[in-house]
Amino acid sequence: MTMAKGYAAQAADAPLEPFHFERRALRPGDVAIDILYCGVCHSDMHTARNEWHNSRYPVLPGHEIVGRVAAVHPDAVKYKAGDMVAVGCMVDSCQQCRECTAGYEQHCLRGATLTYNSPDRVTSDITFGGYSDHIVVREEFVLRVPDGLDPMRAAPLLCAGITTWSPLVRYKIGPGTRMAVAGLGGLGHMGVKFGAALGAHVTMITTSPEKGEDARRLGADEVLLSTDREAMKAARSSFNFILNTIPVAHDLHPYLQLLAREGNMVLVGAIEPLPPIHGGMLIGGDRSIAGSAIGGIPLTQSMLDFCAEKNILPDCEVIPIQAINEAYERMLKSDVKYRFVIDMASLAQEKAAA
Amino acid sequence: MTMAKGYAAQAADAPLEPFHFERRALRPGDVAIDILYCGVCHSDMHTARNEWHNSRYPVLPGHEIVGRVAAVHPDAVKYKAGDMVAVGCMVDSCQQCRECTAGYEQHCLRGATLTYNSPDRVTSDITFGGYSDHIVVREEFVLRVPDGLDPMRAAPLLCAGITTWSPLVRYKIGPGTRMAVAGLGGLGHMGVKFGAALGAHVTMITTSPEKGEDARRLGADEVLLSTDREAMKAARSSFNFILNTIPVAHDLHPYLQLLAREGNMVLVGAIEPLPPIHGGMLIGGDRSIAGSAIGGIPLTQSMLDFCAEKNILPDCEVIPIQAINEAYERMLKSDVKYRFVIDMASLAQEKAAA
Repeated sequence: MTMAKGYAAQAADAPLEPFHFERRALRPGDVAIDILYCGVCHSDMHTARNEWHNSRYPVLPGHEIVGRVAAVHPDAVKYKAGDMVAVGCMVDSCQQCRECTAGYEQHCLRGATLTYNSPDRVTSDITFGGYSDHIVVREEFVLRVPDGLDPMRAAPLLCAGITTWSPLVRYKIGPGTRMAVAGLGGLGHMGVKFGAALGAHVTMITTSPEKGEDARRLGADEVLLSTDREAMKAARSSFNFILNTIPVAHDLHPYLQLLAREGNMVLVGAIEPLPPIHGGMLIGGDRSIAGSAIGGIPLTQSMLDFCAEKNILPDCEVIPIQAINEAYERMLKSDVKYRFVIDMASLAQEKAAA
Repeated sequence: MTMAKGYAAQAADAPLEPFHFERRALRPGDVAIDILYCGVCHSDMHTARNEWHNSRYPVLPGHEIVGRVAAVHPDAVKYKAGDMVAVGCMVDSCQQCRECTAGYEQHCLRGATLTYNSPDRVTSDITFGGYSDHIVVREEFVLRVPDGLDPMRAAPLLCAGITTWSPLVRYKIGPGTRMAVAGLGGLGHMGVKFGAALGAHVTMITTSPEKGEDARRLGADEVLLSTDREAMKAARSSFNFILNTIPVAHDLHPYLQLLAREGNMVLVGAIEPLPPIHGGMLIGGDRSIAGSAIGGIPLTQSMLDFCAEKNILPDCEVIPIQAINEAYERMLKSDVKYRFVIDMASLAQEKAAA
């Protein structure tokens, strides 16, 4: 029996603390990964604190994982020891339904197995995520980190990256698209970078001139201050596409008004009941509101390849695992530019415990 | 000075009664039309009763108009006396903005002039609609009724028809589309007919088995009873497209659940504040909700041509103008299959008054 180390919450009101657990033995097709880096997502905090009312303790979060293959089951064919790989929000799915076979495993009709807080399909044990030195994942859910992509900065691509990339691909964003991004955090800053890389005209919608300046540095062509009534009025009916990364419920009307005919606003953050929308706001302008959830494995791999080719990477602040609770508090205040990444070498400093 | 006759409401709580008004003199490009038939739309009743809080009395409704050209201004080139023509929800727009020049006059950036209850662009007089023996409209907003299309049954195509046709075209509905229609009234029954004519697999979602049988007669392949919990559960994630014609605010969740990945539900009726939607319902399935408002003049003409070619016509009940107030009450009870059309010859029976 080999033990692994990590950081987990034992209850909704408990901080994350050192936690030891038994490594999963390799099953056919499995890949064992020594974790080097793990990004810190809002979902991690929501789950650690049971804010979505579905947490099963201990909760060991983390789904923006980059590491090196330590070992593979003899049946596994995609990877070998030493490969630089990544794992995102899912570690398993039925692999047989129409969604899985089409490469949209996140919409598996039998339910995808999430990287943490989700029952394993074989043992029903609750999965543990990437705030750990080790993870075992079936090879279909392991991504290849292309040569030349900084492993530390690659980590947030596995959730913040694919979450924003996926709707841009779905809605064919590119040259000629008048695109806006609402919310400048881990997701929003990737939305700006991807939009610019795809050739769209990108406007950052924000409440603060400082964030606006930052958005320009990230690649935004223009800044629209949502607090400026005249500017918001002048921008009505002007965008084909709004990537709305605001992670909490909010009034959608000020944004919907900005959509041109047949324009789409895609929500990627607000997994909450939304304030009422007036039907006329959609009907009057042939507008639409959509949602988008991460992305399938093939799309995630092609995003990593695109990022390596175009040298697109998140802006990260590296922290030791011991700073995770403080990082959550700073994340709540949007005090991070723009994604925390845990350097898992810090975990080796923890004393062994049982 | 030549007078015209019609039926108008003088106040929100008043019934529609005989009304006489001065005909508009022909301006350059104008077409004068003797009205033969006018369909009865929910919007007519909403406006007559000031339910949208924007009515200016007297309100003379009607925007599903078919008639014969009586005269044209010497500058007008598209029509000549005797032509069978139609007028829908709009009678004017700026004709210069990007929406007008693209053929989406209903989204004119300066505001389209509606057929009734809207200020004329030249005189600012409030427009009078089709519950009348006469209307004058600039030729750009006059449609040609193709030979072979029954003029009486063509009338509802001008609103109920184009309102449902437009989103089917926008979302490229055709063979391979698993489409559902919610709400079986004037709009919904055209949605079923159009969906079937375009080759989609059409399911009628309704509360009543009787309406379901009717929908099959209209062309639906299947019926889904929204009151049948098991059937609704089994139908989850199964439709690519839902045409939601329900004309009042309602909980959208039971319908959103039925959408497959990247499925769209288009609202065409509920111009009201909608009950809150949970963001997860959109995000979880990459779903979207859109709105759609009538259609532009080029699309309306091509719909009329399509209907003539394929012999697609609304199911109508012809009434005399004197029955209009009773018709509104029956419409409220959904007691019409599926659209009232006023035979304007009945207006000649009214005694002349001043």
